[in-house]
Amino acid sequence: MSDISSSASPPVAWIAGVGASAGLGAALGRRFAREGYTVVLTGRTAQRVEAVAAEIRAQGGHAHAAAGDVTSEQDLARIAQLLNHHGTLRSAIFNAGNAVRAPTLELGIEQFESAWRVNVLGGFVFARAALPLLLAAPDATTNPAGAGSLLFTGATASLRGRPPFAAFAAAKAGLRSLAQSLAREFGPRGVHVAHVVIDGGIDGERLRSAAPQRAQSAGADGLLQPDAIAENYWQLHRQARSAWTQELDLRPWREPF
Amino acid sequence: MSDISSSASPPVAWIAGVGASAGLGAALGRRFAREGYTVVLTGRTAQRVEAVAAEIRAQGGHAHAAAGDVTSEQDLARIAQLLNHHGTLRSAIFNAGNAVRAPTLELGIEQFESAWRVNVLGGFVFARAALPLLLAAPDATTNPAGAGSLLFTGATASLRGRPPFAAFAAAKAGLRSLAQSLAREFGPRGVHVAHVVIDGGIDGERLRSAAPQRAQSAGADGLLQPDAIAENYWQLHRQARSAWTQELDLRPWREPF
Amino acid sequence: MSDISSSASPPVAWIAGVGASAGLGAALGRRFAREGYTVVLTGRTAQRVEAVAAEIRAQGGHAHAAAGDVTSEQDLARIAQLLNHHGTLRSAIFNAGNAVRAPTLELGIEQFESAWRVNVLGGFVFARAALPLLLAAPDATTNPAGAGSLLFTGATASLRGRPPFAAFAAAKAGLRSLAQSLAREFGPRGVHVAHVVIDGGIDGERLRSAAPQRAQSAGADGLLQPDAIAENYWQLHRQARSAWTQELDLRPWREPF
Amino acid sequence: MSDISSSASPPVAWIAGVGASAGLGAALGRRFAREGYTVVLTGRTAQRVEAVAAEIRAQGGHAHAAAGDVTSEQDLARIAQLLNHHGTLRSAIFNAGNAVRAPTLELGIEQFESAWRVNVLGGFVFARAALPLLLAAPDATTNPAGAGSLLFTGATASLRGRPPFAAFAAAKAGLRSLAQSLAREFGPRGVHVAHVVIDGGIDGERLRSAAPQRAQSAGADGLLQPDAIAENYWQLHRQARSAWTQELDLRPWREPF
Repeated sequence: MSDISSSASPPVAWIAGVGASAGLGAALGRRFAREGYTVVLTGRTAQRVEAVAAEIRAQGGHAHAAAGDVTSEQDLARIAQLLNHHGTLRSAIFNAGNAVRAPTLELGIEQFESAWRVNVLGGFVFARAALPLLLAAPDATTNPAGAGSLLFTGATASLRGRPPFAAFAAAKAGLRSLAQSLAREFGPRGVHVAHVVIDGGIDGERLRSAAPQRAQSAGADGLLQPDAIAENYWQLHRQARSAWTQELDLRPWREPF
Repeated sequence: MSDISSSASPPVAWIAGVGASAGLGAALGRRFAREGYTVVLTGRTAQRVEAVAAEIRAQGGHAHAAAGDVTSEQDLARIAQLLNHHGTLRSAIFNAGNAVRAPTLELGIEQFESAWRVNVLGGFVFARAALPLLLAAPDATTNPAGAGSLLFTGATASLRGRPPFAAFAAAKAGLRSLAQSLAREFGPRGVHVAHVVIDGGIDGERLRSAAPQRAQSAGADGLLQPDAIAENYWQLHRQARSAWTQELDLRPWREPF
Repeated sequence: MSDISSSASPPVAWIAGVGASAGLGAALGRRFAREGYTVVLTGRTAQRVEAVAAEIRAQGGHAHAAAGDVTSEQDLARIAQLLNHHGTLRSAIFNAGNAVRAPTLELGIEQFESAWRVNVLGGFVFARAALPLLLAAPDATTNPAGAGSLLFTGATASLRGRPPFAAFAAAKAGLRSLAQSLAREFGPRGVHVAHVVIDGGIDGERLRSAAPQRAQSAGADGLLQPDAIAENYWQLHRQARSAWTQELDLRPWREPF
Repeated sequence: MSDISSSASPPVAWIAGVGASAGLGAALGRRFAREGYTVVLTGRTAQRVEAVAAEIRAQGGHAHAAAGDVTSEQDLARIAQLLNHHGTLRSAIFNAGNAVRAPTLELGIEQFESAWRVNVLGGFVFARAALPLLLAAPDATTNPAGAGSLLFTGATASLRGRPPFAAFAAAKAGLRSLAQSLAREFGPRGVHVAHVVIDGGIDGERLRSAAPQRAQSAGADGLLQPDAIAENYWQLHRQARSAWTQELDLRPWREPF
């Protein structure tokens, strides 16, 4: 396939929503670093983000921790400057999110708002920070691979609202709609915008802590492996622009759907 | 069909998002009043809401203006008390909303948040105020017509994100997801939750002011008539619980879709 | 709402897929007859169709049995002549269908074909017979209610393929697509085409014979009542053309979805 | 990623719907051959299929022409024997299809049936021939890559019925539903079933002959390149079973959607 990183300036991937080393954000960082990308990792907890960056560097990759809050324009503007310093932004991945779980009548306005703030507003603020950099690529409308990619992590709830996830689902549906609008607005300008529906449990630290029994009973490959998911983001990123995917569903082989 | 208003207490319909007399909110008020419901009308502008209530009373209906902000718990709690005073709440209709229109990179965070606040948070706060009243109906799980209805007004953008409506669409998609979660949570408790996708321009004051040429060129019935839309809300409300609709699309006969 | 039957010639409704008196086809006949329509009933078994027609006549309605095979152009051409004799066709309802149930590798080609033949080819042949009559209404493009309606009965499987219903689902998805094409082609010519997704068990003779326990355990209104469904077809038929629905989902209040 | 071809027996890919060298079927053959798969190519016209096979062999690949009609059980049973002779079937791709274009009332029953026969019945007969071979892989439920893949080519019309494509869309919707049923039935048995929605014109011989102007005006990468599409089928095939995609949409970067 075409080489998106043909320009002189080294290609950079920016991944927001990086937490534990065993999570999806870290796996995305590893995957893009493996291809020679300089990866800039953003998450709320500086210590965790730094640990993931150090791990990637230890394996020979180029990685920088850039802790920050995805809902803060200031934080993201600061990180955007850092990105420019390292090369040309070629992929921006919004992987932040938090799930709220409660019967609707017990759900407070603050919880409802918080779900929106991280999942939707965060996606919007992140897109506004990343898009000008992606559009600035000198080959934005001539490279057969496109200017670069803007990828969003979705969930089962993106497609389907149900209790006790009313707040989370309303947020994820909003993020999905945003990704769709952006795809229609920026695709013809060379930016590949795609939304990934992760339809099942991720075999990461979060699920293993919160629901150890579910993790155990899922059986071989019954949960999504972060590295397997990350492979798909990489493949989305390198799709030729003559055949772009805007929404990708991923689920374990045994997952009912 | 079954009579949802069989209890001794007079049936009440609460309509939020009432503005001009020529808009959908007012048409909904007229339609339910025509069936003998006491209608309580909520909107931001007291004067406009009062004018609609007066018009309905002049035609022999029971109507009360209750101005308020759908995103304010206090306002809605106050109105909920008023509802109880007038009878048993049987239908609660969330018709509030505002459309933001801008290229995404020119859209401010405040505009993005404001779209969410009115369209999604408003729907959530409204549902939380209305549901306890609907569930309190003594015949909630025995009446073949159900306890009552909770109806939401959606738009083309509810199903499809596209520029320059990224903010509006993200909000409407969130509201749709919320309606779906509520339908799954409260349907089995007797409350009929439904979402109406209005796929076309409404022949109301808003469109006639903002786009007079479009209104003119649409031709006979090329725009949705508020009274025709309101008729469909009424029919949703009176559906027997053995055959409920959760999502209804409405569009003019000539509308491409 | 507008009166679709304002012309001098009496309004006729044609219902294909009429079987037992306790089924949906018969309920549709009763509902339209109650509004003064002359109903022409088509089904494969002459005796059953005649029994339903007799029942409607005994209640004071105008009903004619016209047995025939919906996949036969000859049969339908013959019935179309009969329709013209009785008045102006205003509603044509395709309610035929048969469900095949088998693991895919045990499904014979004949079964797969048979599911398509009744559900999809039948719908196509029926539409081709009915549309010229509907379009011939003198007020086809001037009546605010439209020229008339062409309605199709769908099922859960219309939206979702799953075993052991691979053949049935593939057929129902085809019928749904056909209804959508027809809506886009004939809507602007005044014919209201709509598809009804019946998402649950119908409380009719078929289910009561095939799965008596399911019928019993469903509880009050846990199955769709044929008369409640038929009411919704009637309401679709009388929608004003400024606010038409193209797809209507119906499910019992307790049905998971 | 996991290596699906780890068994001693050489991996085989079977591609049905192979025509011109400049089409998608041929590109799929080339792509799998490039990975060392023995490719068996099926199409109606022996001469064209043989030409594609010869081309692949000239480039060092293993390719066999096996002309046949996808709707014929006999033809496919014969080819299945051939497959077994060459190794273990690991991927079966149904790429056959024909588009019918006509206003619905001018569409004959034969045309309507023919669209179904090639697109849907063909897919069913092909799946029934391929599945036993895929399931017979000794590592069907233990290989992290799964037993193999069964992939179907869809189109814009798979998701959306509109004139003048009523017959084609009804067929493609049926095929999509079938793919979904098969995914749910055979996924948990190790076979990765996926449906690819090709949403745009393919830059192949068919379009260049039928609509040369459209091909010219599409601009750089404004049509889907067969090789770019084929790359995506290959990536689907090699997805780890912990993160499978069941439906993939592909469209050119400038395609409105």
